[in-house]
Amino acid sequence: MRRKIKKINASILIIGNEILSGRTQDKNIAFISNWLNLNCGISVNEVRIIPDDQKIIAENILLLSKKFNYVFTTGGIGPTHDDITAQSISRAFKVKYEYHKEAYNILEKYYGKKKFNDGRKKMAKMPKGAKLIYNPSSAAPGFITKNVFSLPGVPSILNSMIDNCKKYLVKGSKIHSNTINLYTVESNISKQLGVIQKKYKKSVEVGSYPFFRLGKIGVAIVTRSNSTLQLKKINKDLMKLIKLKKIQILKI
Amino acid sequence: MRRKIKKINASILIIGNEILSGRTQDKNIAFISNWLNLNCGISVNEVRIIPDDQKIIAENILLLSKKFNYVFTTGGIGPTHDDITAQSISRAFKVKYEYHKEAYNILEKYYGKKKFNDGRKKMAKMPKGAKLIYNPSSAAPGFITKNVFSLPGVPSILNSMIDNCKKYLVKGSKIHSNTINLYTVESNISKQLGVIQKKYKKSVEVGSYPFFRLGKIGVAIVTRSNSTLQLKKINKDLMKLIKLKKIQILKI
Repeated sequence: MRRKIKKINASILIIGNEILSGRTQDKNIAFISNWLNLNCGISVNEVRIIPDDQKIIAENILLLSKKFNYVFTTGGIGPTHDDITAQSISRAFKVKYEYHKEAYNILEKYYGKKKFNDGRKKMAKMPKGAKLIYNPSSAAPGFITKNVFSLPGVPSILNSMIDNCKKYLVKGSKIHSNTINLYTVESNISKQLGVIQKKYKKSVEVGSYPFFRLGKIGVAIVTRSNSTLQLKKINKDLMKLIKLKKIQILKI
Repeated sequence: MRRKIKKINASILIIGNEILSGRTQDKNIAFISNWLNLNCGISVNEVRIIPDDQKIIAENILLLSKKFNYVFTTGGIGPTHDDITAQSISRAFKVKYEYHKEAYNILEKYYGKKKFNDGRKKMAKMPKGAKLIYNPSSAAPGFITKNVFSLPGVPSILNSMIDNCKKYLVKGSKIHSNTINLYTVESNISKQLGVIQKKYKKSVEVGSYPFFRLGKIGVAIVTRSNSTLQLKKINKDLMKLIKLKKIQILKI
């Protein structure tokens, strides 16, 4: 009996001039994408990086939330003037931007009544009806508006919060992957690899990625599929090709 | 006399399932964005990461090439079946996908006639009329189609090629930036920072980015502008605020 494959997808929207300008190297894309696949069987199908501009954020939120099952935003939920993610999402969905009672209480307790200034209060303002994503690192919660999950930009804080998204996500079929690292060049195997990809085009995605390691050139052949059986089958075909071409495998 | 500011923008289109899946950490976005600003005064205003899918690549090429002065693509110009950037750009602009004579000659010379197999020949196929971006690392050239610059995905090769794009780019006014690292938290200065940003909203972009360093929490205040004069002025206002709040500056 064939197991039914359930495909759930997501997009990531990185909000921040510091990433666009190249000042800061993004670390959240790979982390979120890996987490979604490993923990929820969800594939990231598109990523966008955009500036801190309310109109641009709102447009992208609307478009991506229609196009994909889920959207994950990072950045722009802090206390400063350039943190405008919550306002922009409110604008996109035409809902009020207002204090979230529970978030307000969490932050007031964390800072203490005396030190709970306007900047800190701003972090409790969210699109009306948002659900909270609790933050064990620095209190200020993320939030969920419809199918949009808003997380902070600081990687260590984001990493500590992401497990709290899990219960709100519909799980898909996990994508399994297998990597074979070869001491060869892509153009030595490209033709045969194309033939193998064609044979499995409906069930396995085959990627070929050159690398340099220990002073040697190599190629990583990555196969990805919802079916472990199909992965085993394609692996046999790949091993035949490797043997035929007398290519050395790099064991890591 | 006021110097006229010339704004030129670009977008980056990262093509590759390996980046989307989180298997590979992208290093090209920050590199290209920094290079464009420092060398050409060009700002990156949007980045997208998309899968190896001809239809999706073509749609994005068409859209981004209309929206921005330049588009830089990375990935998908190698010899294997998943390298489909050139075909996709041909499709987007409705031009023929054919051998580029000079690229063919470069590759034939590099590999030698005997070893110039079909996979290697594929790297000489480009949109008709493309201009070459020479590759001092591994011969296979990148190419320019209208306002779209196509570079490889391997960072070391891309880095070695990018200077060859310079002569084809119209230069804009350089964006200068200044960073002050403070031992404080964002919410301590968010209100006053907002006032300062408002004062300079037409000339300076103010960003506020929390960091953790040497076990301490801090905030980097980054100001960016085409005008060094305006940067100096805003810096004075920021120093006043820092003095008033008795905040320690971290010297790096």
